[in-house]
Amino acid sequence: MKIILASKSPRRQELIKGLELNFSIVTYEVDEDFDASDLPSDIARKLAVKKAHHFPNTLIDDEVLLTADTIVWINGKVLNKPANEQESFEMLSTICGATHQVFTGVCLKTIDKEISFSEMSSVTCKKLSDEEIYHYIRNYKPFDKAGSYGIQDWFGYTAVEKIDGCFYNVMGLPVSRIYEELKKIKKK
Amino acid sequence: MKIILASKSPRRQELIKGLELNFSIVTYEVDEDFDASDLPSDIARKLAVKKAHHFPNTLIDDEVLLTADTIVWINGKVLNKPANEQESFEMLSTICGATHQVFTGVCLKTIDKEISFSEMSSVTCKKLSDEEIYHYIRNYKPFDKAGSYGIQDWFGYTAVEKIDGCFYNVMGLPVSRIYEELKKIKKK
Repeated sequence: MKIILASKSPRRQELIKGLELNFSIVTYEVDEDFDASDLPSDIARKLAVKKAHHFPNTLIDDEVLLTADTIVWINGKVLNKPANEQESFEMLSTICGATHQVFTGVCLKTIDKEISFSEMSSVTCKKLSDEEIYHYIRNYKPFDKAGSYGIQDWFGYTAVEKIDGCFYNVMGLPVSRIYEELKKIKKK
Repeated sequence: MKIILASKSPRRQELIKGLELNFSIVTYEVDEDFDASDLPSDIARKLAVKKAHHFPNTLIDDEVLLTADTIVWINGKVLNKPANEQESFEMLSTICGATHQVFTGVCLKTIDKEISFSEMSSVTCKKLSDEEIYHYIRNYKPFDKAGSYGIQDWFGYTAVEKIDGCFYNVMGLPVSRIYEELKKIKKK
Protein backbone atom coordinates (compact mmCIF):
# COMPACT_ATOMS: atom_id res chain seq x y z
CA MET A 1 0.00 0.00 0.00
CA LYS A 2 1.40 3.36 -1.00
CA ILE A 3 0.06 6.58 0.51
CA ILE A 4 -0.06 9.76 -1.53
CA LEU A 5 -0.19 12.55 1.00
CA ALA A 6 -1.64 15.73 -0.46
CA SER A 7 -0.31 18.21 2.07
CA LYS A 8 2.42 20.80 2.37
CA SER A 9 2.38 20.56 6.15
CA PRO A 10 5.69 19.25 7.57
CA ARG A 11 3.72 18.19 10.68
CA ARG A 12 1.45 15.92 8.63
CA GLN A 13 4.45 14.48 6.79
CA GLU A 14 6.14 13.70 10.09
CA LEU A 15 3.00 12.00 11.44
CA ILE A 16 2.59 9.76 8.39
CA LYS A 17 6.27 8.85 8.63
CA GLY A 18 5.70 7.86 12.27
CA LEU A 19 3.04 5.36 11.15
CA GLU A 20 5.82 3.63 9.15
CA LEU A 21 3.89 4.09 5.94
CA ASN A 22 5.42 4.16 2.52
CA PHE A 23 4.36 7.55 1.18
CA SER A 24 4.98 10.30 -1.32
CA ILE A 25 3.88 13.91 -1.28
CA VAL A 26 1.90 15.84 -3.84
CA THR A 27 0.86 19.46 -3.55
CA TYR A 28 -1.63 21.43 -5.61
CA GLU A 29 -3.85 24.42 -4.95
CA VAL A 30 -7.50 24.01 -3.95
CA ASP A 31 -9.65 26.90 -2.75
CA GLU A 32 -10.61 26.44 0.88
CA ASP A 33 -14.05 28.04 0.75
CA PHE A 34 -16.73 26.36 2.81
CA ASP A 35 -20.37 26.73 3.73
CA ALA A 36 -20.37 28.51 7.09
CA SER A 37 -23.83 27.14 7.88
CA ASP A 38 -22.50 23.56 7.96
CA LEU A 39 -21.62 21.77 11.19
CA PRO A 40 -17.90 22.15 11.96
CA SER A 41 -17.36 18.40 11.57
CA ASP A 42 -18.84 18.65 8.07
CA ILE A 43 -16.85 21.76 7.17
CA ALA A 44 -13.57 19.93 7.88
CA ARG A 45 -14.67 16.68 6.26
CA LYS A 46 -16.00 18.35 3.11
CA LEU A 47 -12.81 20.39 2.71
CA ALA A 48 -10.81 17.13 2.82
CA VAL A 49 -13.15 15.58 0.24
CA LYS A 50 -12.84 18.66 -1.99
CA LYS A 51 -9.05 18.33 -1.88
CA ALA A 52 -9.35 14.65 -2.85
CA HIS A 53 -11.59 15.50 -5.80
CA HIS A 54 -9.04 17.98 -7.11
CA PHE A 55 -6.24 15.41 -7.16
CA PRO A 56 -4.69 16.01 -10.57
CA ASN A 57 -3.49 12.47 -11.24
CA THR A 58 -5.05 9.08 -11.56
CA LEU A 59 -4.71 6.57 -8.77
CA ILE A 60 -3.43 3.11 -9.56
CA ASP A 61 -3.77 -0.17 -7.63
CA ASP A 62 -2.41 -0.10 -4.07
CA GLU A 63 -2.30 3.69 -3.94
CA VAL A 64 -4.27 5.55 -1.30
CA LEU A 65 -4.69 9.30 -1.59
CA LEU A 66 -4.84 11.01 1.81
CA THR A 67 -6.19 14.55 2.07
CA ALA A 68 -7.00 16.45 5.26
CA ASP A 69 -8.13 19.80 6.56
CA THR A 70 -7.94 21.11 10.11
CA ILE A 71 -10.20 23.85 11.45
CA VAL A 72 -10.38 25.58 14.81
CA TRP A 73 -13.90 26.19 16.13
CA ILE A 74 -14.83 28.60 18.92
CA ASN A 75 -17.97 30.60 19.74
CA GLY A 76 -19.82 29.05 16.83
CA LYS A 77 -17.34 30.01 14.12
CA VAL A 78 -14.20 28.92 12.32
CA LEU A 79 -10.84 30.55 13.00
CA ASN A 80 -8.84 30.45 9.78
CA LYS A 81 -5.17 31.22 9.32
CA PRO A 82 -4.47 34.77 10.51
CA ALA A 83 -3.64 37.29 7.80
CA ASN A 84 -1.41 39.47 9.98
CA GLU A 85 -0.19 40.19 13.50
CA GLN A 86 -3.40 41.96 14.47
CA GLU A 87 -5.63 39.02 13.46
CA SER A 88 -3.25 36.61 15.14
CA PHE A 89 -3.50 38.60 18.38
CA GLU A 90 -7.31 38.62 18.20
CA MET A 91 -7.46 34.86 17.63
CA LEU A 92 -5.07 34.05 20.46
CA SER A 93 -6.89 36.40 22.84
CA THR A 94 -10.13 34.54 22.01
CA ILE A 95 -8.53 31.15 22.53
CA CYS A 96 -6.73 31.95 25.81
CA GLY A 97 -8.77 31.36 28.94
CA ALA A 98 -11.30 29.20 27.08
CA THR A 99 -11.95 25.79 25.51
CA HIS A 100 -12.12 25.42 21.74
CA GLN A 101 -12.57 22.50 19.38
CA VAL A 102 -10.24 21.30 16.66
CA PHE A 103 -11.77 19.30 13.82
CA THR A 104 -9.62 17.47 11.30
CA GLY A 105 -11.44 16.14 8.27
CA VAL A 106 -9.77 13.27 6.40
CA CYS A 107 -10.48 11.67 3.04
CA LEU A 108 -8.93 8.34 1.99
CA LYS A 109 -9.39 7.50 -1.68
CA THR A 110 -8.34 4.43 -3.63
CA ILE A 111 -8.98 3.44 -7.23
CA ASP A 112 -12.45 2.18 -6.33
CA LYS A 113 -13.33 3.53 -2.89
CA GLU A 114 -13.57 6.77 -0.94
CA ILE A 115 -14.11 7.22 2.76
CA SER A 116 -14.19 10.47 4.70
CA PHE A 117 -14.60 11.29 8.35
CA SER A 118 -13.77 13.98 10.81
CA GLU A 119 -12.40 13.81 14.33
CA MET A 120 -12.83 16.32 17.14
CA SER A 121 -10.51 17.21 20.02
CA SER A 122 -11.25 19.78 22.71
CA VAL A 123 -8.40 22.03 23.79
CA THR A 124 -8.45 24.12 26.98
CA CYS A 125 -6.06 27.07 27.17
CA LYS A 126 -4.96 29.25 30.04
CA LYS A 127 -4.97 33.01 29.99
CA LEU A 128 -1.68 34.46 28.73
CA SER A 129 -0.73 38.10 29.16
CA ASP A 130 -0.75 40.41 26.10
CA GLU A 131 3.02 40.50 26.41
CA GLU A 132 3.22 36.70 26.23
CA ILE A 133 0.89 36.58 23.23
CA TYR A 134 3.00 39.15 21.36
CA HIS A 135 6.15 37.27 22.34
CA TYR A 136 4.64 34.20 20.70
CA ILE A 137 3.45 35.94 17.53
CA ARG A 138 6.76 37.75 16.95
CA ASN A 139 8.98 34.77 17.62
CA TYR A 140 6.92 31.93 16.18
CA LYS A 141 5.04 33.72 13.36
CA PRO A 142 2.05 31.34 13.45
CA PHE A 143 0.49 32.73 10.25
CA ASP A 144 0.31 29.38 8.47
CA LYS A 145 -1.67 27.79 11.29
CA ALA A 146 -5.45 27.56 11.71
CA GLY A 147 -6.32 29.37 14.93
CA SER A 148 -2.83 30.90 14.95
CA TYR A 149 -1.06 28.40 17.18
CA GLY A 150 0.87 25.14 17.11
CA ILE A 151 0.18 22.58 19.83
CA GLN A 152 3.78 21.39 19.37
CA ASP A 153 5.49 24.73 19.97
CA TRP A 154 5.88 27.30 22.77
CA PHE A 155 2.15 28.12 22.79
CA GLY A 156 1.22 24.44 23.20
CA TYR A 157 3.81 24.08 25.97
CA THR A 158 2.78 27.11 28.00
CA ALA A 159 -0.91 27.80 27.32
CA VAL A 160 -2.49 24.41 26.64
CA GLU A 161 -3.73 23.13 29.95
CA LYS A 162 -5.49 20.00 28.77
CA ILE A 163 -6.87 18.32 25.74
CA ASP A 164 -9.73 15.88 25.50
CA GLY A 165 -9.41 13.65 22.45
CA CYS A 166 -6.62 12.76 20.04
CA PHE A 167 -3.53 14.99 20.45
CA TYR A 168 -2.26 14.31 16.94
CA ASN A 169 -5.63 15.39 15.57
CA VAL A 170 -4.81 18.85 16.89
CA MET A 171 -1.43 18.67 15.14
CA GLY A 172 -3.23 17.97 11.87
CA LEU A 173 -3.96 14.24 11.50
CA PRO A 174 -5.89 11.77 13.68
CA VAL A 175 -3.20 9.13 13.11
CA SER A 176 -4.67 6.36 15.26
CA ARG A 177 -7.99 6.58 13.38
CA ILE A 178 -6.18 6.73 10.03
CA TYR A 179 -4.13 3.64 10.92
CA GLU A 180 -7.37 1.78 11.72
CA GLU A 181 -9.12 2.85 8.51
CA LEU A 182 -6.09 1.91 6.40
CA LYS A 183 -6.08 -1.58 7.95
CA LYS A 184 -9.71 -1.98 6.86
CA ILE A 185 -8.88 -0.84 3.31
CA LYS A 186 -5.95 -3.28 3.17
CA LYS A 187 -8.07 -6.21 4.39
CA LYS A 188 -10.80 -5.68 1.82
CA MET B 1 16.43 32.14 36.44
CA LYS B 2 18.46 29.06 35.62
CA ILE B 3 16.90 25.60 35.64
CA ILE B 4 18.91 22.59 36.70
CA LEU B 5 17.13 19.63 35.18
CA ALA B 6 17.92 16.42 37.01
CA SER B 7 16.91 13.95 34.32
CA LYS B 8 18.54 11.70 31.74
CA SER B 9 15.40 11.68 29.62
CA PRO B 10 15.92 13.29 26.20
CA ARG B 11 12.16 13.89 26.07
CA ARG B 12 12.26 15.98 29.26
CA GLN B 13 15.27 17.93 27.96
CA GLU B 14 13.39 18.68 24.75
CA LEU B 15 10.32 19.87 26.65
CA ILE B 16 12.30 22.25 28.86
CA LYS B 17 14.04 23.58 25.77
CA GLY B 18 10.62 24.26 24.22
CA LEU B 19 9.74 26.47 27.22
CA GLU B 20 12.71 28.69 26.22
CA LEU B 21 14.31 28.20 29.60
CA ASN B 22 17.97 28.57 30.28
CA PHE B 23 18.89 25.15 31.70
CA SER B 24 21.64 22.69 32.43
CA ILE B 25 21.45 18.96 33.06
CA VAL B 26 22.69 16.96 36.02
CA THR B 27 22.32 13.24 36.48
CA TYR B 28 22.86 11.12 39.54
CA GLU B 29 21.45 7.83 40.78
CA VAL B 30 18.54 7.68 43.23
CA ASP B 31 16.72 4.47 44.11
CA GLU B 32 13.14 4.57 42.85
CA ASP B 33 11.54 2.56 45.64
CA PHE B 34 8.14 3.73 46.77
CA ASP B 35 5.40 2.84 49.22
CA ALA B 36 2.87 0.86 47.17
CA SER B 37 0.11 1.71 49.64
CA ASP B 38 0.33 5.43 48.74
CA LEU B 39 -2.05 7.09 46.30
CA PRO B 40 -0.54 7.13 42.80
CA SER B 41 -0.40 10.96 42.81
CA ASP B 42 1.67 10.76 46.01
CA ILE B 43 3.93 7.98 44.69
CA ALA B 44 4.94 10.15 41.72
CA ARG B 45 5.23 13.35 43.76
CA LYS B 46 7.28 11.74 46.54
CA LEU B 47 9.66 10.17 44.02
CA ALA B 48 10.28 13.63 42.56
CA VAL B 49 10.88 15.04 46.04
CA LYS B 50 13.27 12.19 46.84
CA LYS B 51 15.26 12.99 43.71
CA ALA B 52 15.40 16.65 44.74
CA HIS B 53 16.68 15.72 48.21
CA HIS B 54 19.50 13.69 46.71
CA PHE B 55 20.79 16.58 44.61
CA PRO B 56 24.52 16.43 45.26
CA ASN B 57 25.29 20.14 44.92
CA THR B 58 24.22 23.31 46.59
CA LEU B 59 21.81 25.65 44.89
CA ILE B 60 22.74 29.29 44.51
CA ASP B 61 20.54 32.35 43.89
CA ASP B 62 18.39 32.22 40.76
CA GLU B 63 18.86 28.47 40.35
CA VAL B 64 15.82 26.19 40.30
CA LEU B 65 16.31 22.46 40.57
CA LEU B 66 13.66 20.53 38.62
CA THR B 67 13.17 16.83 39.34
CA ALA B 68 10.36 14.63 38.06
CA ASP B 69 9.06 11.10 38.04
CA THR B 70 6.44 9.57 35.75
CA ILE B 71 4.44 6.48 36.66
CA VAL B 72 1.81 4.51 34.78
CA TRP B 73 -1.16 3.36 36.85
CA ILE B 74 -3.65 0.66 35.86
CA ASN B 75 -5.85 -1.77 37.81
CA GLY B 76 -4.70 -0.28 41.09
CA LYS B 77 -0.99 -0.69 40.56
CA VAL B 78 2.12 0.88 39.09
CA LEU B 79 3.67 -0.33 35.85
CA ASN B 80 7.41 0.23 36.05
CA LYS B 81 9.94 -0.01 33.28
CA PRO B 82 9.83 -3.52 31.77
CA ALA B 83 12.85 -5.72 32.47
CA ASN B 84 12.57 -7.73 29.27
CA GLU B 85 10.48 -8.53 26.20
CA GLN B 86 8.11 -10.76 28.16
CA GLU B 87 7.32 -8.08 30.75
CA SER B 88 6.96 -5.52 28.02
CA PHE B 89 4.44 -7.73 26.24
CA GLU B 90 2.45 -8.22 29.44
CA MET B 91 2.33 -4.48 30.14
CA LEU B 92 1.26 -3.57 26.63
CA SER B 93 -1.41 -6.30 26.62
CA THR B 94 -2.79 -4.82 29.85
CA ILE B 95 -2.74 -1.28 28.48
CA CYS B 96 -4.31 -2.06 25.08
CA GLY B 97 -8.10 -1.95 25.00
CA ALA B 98 -8.27 -0.01 28.28
CA THR B 99 -7.80 3.37 29.92
CA HIS B 100 -4.86 3.98 32.24
CA GLN B 101 -3.56 6.97 34.16
CA VAL B 102 -0.18 8.63 33.89
CA PHE B 103 1.04 10.61 36.89
CA THR B 104 4.05 12.87 36.69
CA GLY B 105 5.35 14.17 39.99
CA VAL B 106 7.45 17.33 39.89
CA CYS B 107 9.59 19.06 42.50
CA LEU B 108 10.88 22.63 42.06
CA LYS B 109 13.52 23.63 44.57
CA THR B 110 15.31 26.94 45.05
CA ILE B 111 17.76 28.08 47.70
CA ASP B 112 14.89 28.82 50.10
CA LYS B 113 11.77 27.15 48.77
CA GLU B 114 10.47 23.78 47.62
CA ILE B 115 7.19 23.00 45.92
CA SER B 116 5.99 19.67 44.67
CA PHE B 117 2.88 18.55 42.86
CA SER B 118 1.67 15.82 40.60
CA GLU B 119 -0.43 15.93 37.50
CA MET B 120 -2.66 13.20 36.06
CA SER B 121 -3.60 12.44 32.47
CA SER B 122 -5.89 9.61 31.35
CA VAL B 123 -4.88 7.67 28.25
CA THR B 124 -7.24 5.39 26.32
CA CYS B 125 -5.66 2.77 24.08
CA LYS B 126 -7.13 0.56 21.39
CA LYS B 127 -6.60 -3.17 21.17
CA LEU B 128 -3.55 -4.09 19.12
CA SER B 129 -2.90 -7.62 17.84
CA ASP B 130 -0.12 -9.69 19.45
CA GLU B 131 1.75 -9.32 16.17
CA GLU B 132 1.54 -5.52 16.37
CA ILE B 133 2.66 -5.49 20.00
CA TYR B 134 5.71 -7.64 19.17
CA HIS B 135 6.43 -5.44 16.17
CA TYR B 136 6.52 -2.47 18.53
CA ILE B 137 8.68 -4.13 21.19
CA ARG B 138 11.24 -5.45 18.72
CA ASN B 139 11.55 -2.27 16.71
CA TYR B 140 11.22 0.37 19.42
CA LYS B 141 12.70 -1.44 22.45
CA PRO B 142 10.63 0.53 25.01
CA PHE B 143 12.56 -0.84 28.00
CA ASP B 144 13.48 2.58 29.39
CA LYS B 145 9.84 3.67 29.50
CA ALA B 146 7.35 3.41 32.36
CA GLY B 147 4.44 1.28 31.11
CA SER B 148 6.62 0.21 28.17
CA TYR B 149 5.46 2.76 25.60
CA GLY B 150 6.17 6.23 24.26
CA ILE B 151 3.23 8.50 23.45
CA GLN B 152 5.46 10.18 20.87
CA ASP B 153 6.38 7.03 18.89
CA TRP B 154 4.63 4.36 16.80
CA PHE B 155 2.63 3.08 19.77
CA GLY B 156 1.30 6.55 20.55
CA TYR B 157 0.44 7.07 16.89
CA THR B 158 -1.41 3.81 16.35
CA ALA B 159 -2.82 2.70 19.72
CA VAL B 160 -3.57 5.88 21.64
CA GLU B 161 -7.15 6.76 20.84
CA LYS B 162 -7.57 9.71 23.15
CA ILE B 163 -6.09 11.41 26.13
CA ASP B 164 -7.82 13.48 28.77
CA GLY B 165 -5.42 15.93 30.40
CA CYS B 166 -2.01 17.33 29.54
CA PHE B 167 -0.31 15.50 26.64
CA TYR B 168 3.19 16.57 27.66
CA ASN B 169 2.55 15.17 31.12
CA VAL B 170 2.36 11.74 29.46
CA MET B 171 5.69 12.47 27.72
CA GLY B 172 7.26 13.16 31.11
CA LEU B 173 6.66 16.78 32.16
CA PRO B 174 3.47 18.82 32.66
CA VAL B 175 5.10 21.82 30.96
CA SER B 176 2.18 24.23 31.11
CA ARG B 177 1.87 23.71 34.87
CA ILE B 178 5.64 24.02 35.33
CA TYR B 179 5.69 27.27 33.34
CA GLU B 180 2.98 28.64 35.65
CA GLU B 181 4.74 27.59 38.84
CA LEU B 182 8.06 29.04 37.64
CA LYS B 183 6.36 32.38 36.97
CA LYS B 184 5.14 32.38 40.59
CA ILE B 185 8.65 31.61 41.86
CA LYS B 186 10.09 34.39 39.71
CA LYS B 187 7.53 36.96 40.95
CA LYS B 188 8.19 36.26 44.60
